[in-house]
Amino acid sequence: MDERVREHAEVLVDWSARVEAGDDVVLDVAEDAHDLAVAVAEVLGDRGATVTTLYGSDEVTRAYLKGHEDGTDGDGPDEDQAAEADSNPTFGEQAVDLALFEAADVYLRLGGGRNTTATADVDRATRRAYASSRSAVREARMATDWVSTVHPTRSLAQQAGMAYEEYRDFVYDAVLRDWEALAGEMADMKAILDAGDEVRIVTERDDAPDTDVTMSIAGRTAVNSAASVAYDSHNLPSGEVFTAPCATEGEAFFDVPMTIDATRVRDVRLIFEAGEVVDFSASAGEAALASILETDPGARRLGEFGIGMNRGIDRFTDSILFDEKMGDTVHLAVGRAYDACLPEGESGNESAIHVDLIGDVSEDSFIAVDGEVVQRNGTFRWEDGFDESR
Amino acid sequence: MDERVREHAEVLVDWSARVEAGDDVVLDVAEDAHDLAVAVAEVLGDRGATVTTLYGSDEVTRAYLKGHEDGTDGDGPDEDQAAEADSNPTFGEQAVDLALFEAADVYLRLGGGRNTTATADVDRATRRAYASSRSAVREARMATDWVSTVHPTRSLAQQAGMAYEEYRDFVYDAVLRDWEALAGEMADMKAILDAGDEVRIVTERDDAPDTDVTMSIAGRTAVNSAASVAYDSHNLPSGEVFTAPCATEGEAFFDVPMTIDATRVRDVRLIFEAGEVVDFSASAGEAALASILETDPGARRLGEFGIGMNRGIDRFTDSILFDEKMGDTVHLAVGRAYDACLPEGESGNESAIHVDLIGDVSEDSFIAVDGEVVQRNGTFRWEDGFDESR
Repeated sequence: MDERVREHAEVLVDWSARVEAGDDVVLDVAEDAHDLAVAVAEVLGDRGATVTTLYGSDEVTRAYLKGHEDGTDGDGPDEDQAAEADSNPTFGEQAVDLALFEAADVYLRLGGGRNTTATADVDRATRRAYASSRSAVREARMATDWVSTVHPTRSLAQQAGMAYEEYRDFVYDAVLRDWEALAGEMADMKAILDAGDEVRIVTERDDAPDTDVTMSIAGRTAVNSAASVAYDSHNLPSGEVFTAPCATEGEAFFDVPMTIDATRVRDVRLIFEAGEVVDFSASAGEAALASILETDPGARRLGEFGIGMNRGIDRFTDSILFDEKMGDTVHLAVGRAYDACLPEGESGNESAIHVDLIGDVSEDSFIAVDGEVVQRNGTFRWEDGFDESR
Repeated sequence: MDERVREHAEVLVDWSARVEAGDDVVLDVAEDAHDLAVAVAEVLGDRGATVTTLYGSDEVTRAYLKGHEDGTDGDGPDEDQAAEADSNPTFGEQAVDLALFEAADVYLRLGGGRNTTATADVDRATRRAYASSRSAVREARMATDWVSTVHPTRSLAQQAGMAYEEYRDFVYDAVLRDWEALAGEMADMKAILDAGDEVRIVTERDDAPDTDVTMSIAGRTAVNSAASVAYDSHNLPSGEVFTAPCATEGEAFFDVPMTIDATRVRDVRLIFEAGEVVDFSASAGEAALASILETDPGARRLGEFGIGMNRGIDRFTDSILFDEKMGDTVHLAVGRAYDACLPEGESGNESAIHVDLIGDVSEDSFIAVDGEVVQRNGTFRWEDGFDESR
């Protein structure tokens, strides 16, 4: 086994999930994440935790949902039982999943299937009914110390447009960081954002529309997303600092391609007035973008401003787990804000959606807080080579 | 997908487990049983059940147990945590597994790993501690409508000494029976055994030692093991009728090779007096056999007499799931008797072990109940070609 698989498992169990002896851990293993599951199980055994292993197979889920479609519309192989199922067109109470997550201390999701589009032919209505039947399960799962990561598989390499070996290197560069050091650096950035009232982001590149956008962050609390439940951060890799902005003004351009609702969206431009998107465009997927923005009133306001600080991630791979944490990027998400960023008891922007849009700030750009530049051309002000002169 | 995989799934869900709309089903999928899991999930969706999918990977279990060994003997990578685990050398309460099986109506185990010896290097003490920590889990699982089956994998084909395609044909011949018809035939055999007081088994072959053994079955109830929870039968395939004999006398020869505690045992001969094994021999694995018989006093008495009636199983494959159900065989098990065979409230032979030994009765043989021959040379008395003359 690649030694990096073992290191990944140790980072996941010790740094990210903070598993302790006696913890009851649920390990959810995608189809091709077997090797990581083996490595994680060994670490869990060593740490004195218990482990229950789920098979998180998209193909099994797809088959179950397609079977349900057959059953509920009455063209299944057994008409009597189909009719019986028909009287209960939802998915029932999911009592086993609920019981298991309620009993669990920690949930570790190991992504890495065989086909990222494995459930493509499932009806939207079926998906929605299934998701809604699982809301209590989801809540119970989110109440654990949960962490989501991926094992590098050929399917994910393909989605990233990379060779398998190349993609493995990419994933381990992103995951096997000095998280303690990065968490310290991100704590500095969090302190700046917590103390600040206004953020301005500017990019002026010859080959792209300009960005010049200002947002209020007064009274908001930034999250130091350091890939650990100890930081209220549930993704491995992570490496971003984010907060919940409001009163956004100006225009922003996002050069990183995104997949929204299975549609590739490119070169998104948003124009903000008084916190709302008042105009937008995209060179591809504009209709998908329009549909997102029309979801509800909150879908036209920002829920998140984030700064990617994981320099182990050096390219876009069409996966939000990695893309939004890429070093020297910023992202703005339309839609729902995270409660962690709001004052106690206050809720931020509400929406059914949360869609991140990512822009490169590695050159011809700066991020300023209350008029003071904190990053210019991809260099933070505490780093060597920061240009004080401008 | 091979159409037989879908048929296997339907037999499992409908005939064996009797799944109904609203049932909460736990599906436990071995490493290479993915295709069968997909087929079963589709049937479960159609029938309106819920499904929770476990990953029953021997390699994950092995890693967990090896990690635990590292942790508890203190040479793990993190001495502090190892020391903590050391204060709790058992495996904890397995709270998640317990909660999930207590919430489940049905448990379907799909065997079919990648290596039948995947846990070979785990210490015996570790296995024992793990098994004992899981006794409550096991009880909760056995309290469901549970069924165990296997998906034909290359690993199982190898254990059977067969080519992959050949093994697939073998498994589907065994599983895809007319279970309704076989259950009827086995009900006739059960009626004969329930009414009978004494069984005699005789084989007289030129190439093997003779068998001539008699057992009392007075007051005992036979089980019609028809591969369905409706018959209190939890294996697919099944196809045997068995009861709990006592007061065994005579000598029995078992020509089917067995693997007992990882040792191949061949040509077992047992001599019984007053229900006890008083002498024994084997052409291979005699020490393993001796060790089994010395486990406890009950290990020298019979717990089961069974008649294999599944003629879809036409050869020995070193797997008890198949071997003991093979048509035209009988098996005697030393050790524990099943309560289902005993009068209400009475318990039969007690032992920590239950080891089946199998003999061919397809020729030069007969089985008699109360002096009346019910099968001769592999033909039951209700079948064409039964020889009335002898």
